Amino acid sequence: MPIRLVCLDADDTLWHNETFFRLTQRRFAELLAPYAGDIDLEERLAATERRNLATYGYGVKGFTLSMIETALEIGGERLPASVPAEILAAGRAMMHHPVELLEGVREALAALKEQARLVLVTKGDLFHQEAKLAASGVGDFFSGVEIVSEKTAETYARAFARHGAAPDHAVMAGNSMRSDVLPALAAGGWAALVPYDLTWEHELAEAPAAHPRYRELGHLKDLAGWIAAIR
Amino acid sequence: MPIRLVCLDADDTLWHNETFFRLTQRRFAELLAPYAGDIDLEERLAATERRNLATYGYGVKGFTLSMIETALEIGGERLPASVPAEILAAGRAMMHHPVELLEGVREALAALKEQARLVLVTKGDLFHQEAKLAASGVGDFFSGVEIVSEKTAETYARAFARHGAAPDHAVMAGNSMRSDVLPALAAGGWAALVPYDLTWEHELAEAPAAHPRYRELGHLKDLAGWIAAIR
Repeated sequence: MPIRLVCLDADDTLWHNETFFRLTQRRFAELLAPYAGDIDLEERLAATERRNLATYGYGVKGFTLSMIETALEIGGERLPASVPAEILAAGRAMMHHPVELLEGVREALAALKEQARLVLVTKGDLFHQEAKLAASGVGDFFSGVEIVSEKTAETYARAFARHGAAPDHAVMAGNSMRSDVLPALAAGGWAALVPYDLTWEHELAEAPAAHPRYRELGHLKDLAGWIAAIR
Repeated sequence: MPIRLVCLDADDTLWHNETFFRLTQRRFAELLAPYAGDIDLEERLAATERRNLATYGYGVKGFTLSMIETALEIGGERLPASVPAEILAAGRAMMHHPVELLEGVREALAALKEQARLVLVTKGDLFHQEAKLAASGVGDFFSGVEIVSEKTAETYARAFARHGAAPDHAVMAGNSMRSDVLPALAAGGWAALVPYDLTWEHELAEAPAAHPRYRELGHLKDLAGWIAAIR
């Protein structure tokens, strides 16, 4: 098989992430409900996040700041100080949440490591992603870690080159069509989508139509078989 | 001369940074003064920052969260919602503040680039540091950029190796004794301190006693001359 380099996403590919965002959003909605009238809290928070992405980038700290901002907008002077205090606590709880590997990830990584070099490619907060990788117990499977501010075709071209693989010898796998699959294909690599139960709306995108270097897989465990079959 | 690789810090070495933190701290103190009684606001904020460093890491987003947390602690239920809103605005203003190069930096970089490969080594928020580098207009001087969560001896050993220089062929220059000088020396490299007028207390440390690979310089412009004289 030609694959020499396997790049893997982290959040919702190796460990649970979106689940904790959703739980925190629910907590946010509970806290704000008394002040919200008929405002759609989820939509308002999502709008703040979108607006702030160019300022804060990805990650829990920016998300926490966006929750506080939305709460202040909605509650105005009626908002008791306990609400932003509770939001700060919820954000901190997300930062401190234990890393929970998805089922079967360790076995999948062990099999992949027999076939190729593994590199983690994740976006978000540098400090928090490093902390999660350290806590995950799977750091030793990876010969490289790339924490980036955004996943573009250029990001993957650079990651493939830095880790010594021509694009057609490299594959990227993850749960985001927008961030993991499409830009890796655009960089000339192979790409596999491994869907997670929940997807942040920001990460949704159309699947490529019958692309020869793309496959949707049911589980990360299926990746080793797919790349072994590539000729 | 043996120097093949020049690593440079960014904040307060290439462009102003601590100045903006101090201005924002002053704004914070003004906002909280009516609720502070005889609390030392600067000391309280610094204590929150220290406590949160292990959760948030470095950067403006964590600093903003620490300001909000301190304000809520001090003001309690008396705190009007306008205060956290003003703090959010102050944090956003820091994120959007134009990058102001220190005097003579462009000329210093042009001279250094004639002598060795230049690599930027900076800690803090990945997203914000990339944005500042892009806005600085000096990105093209650098053949590499390392944004790290903490500057340790291992950080420098890895950066020197990644950019192809043995430690005794590499120099690190910056304004922090703790983050730029001491760990670079510990990694076996050369190191120059280029002091900035203001130093965050966290970055203070004892100077090494007459270390053969260390020099304090008056300005970044003096770095080219020092490394040229190294035998």
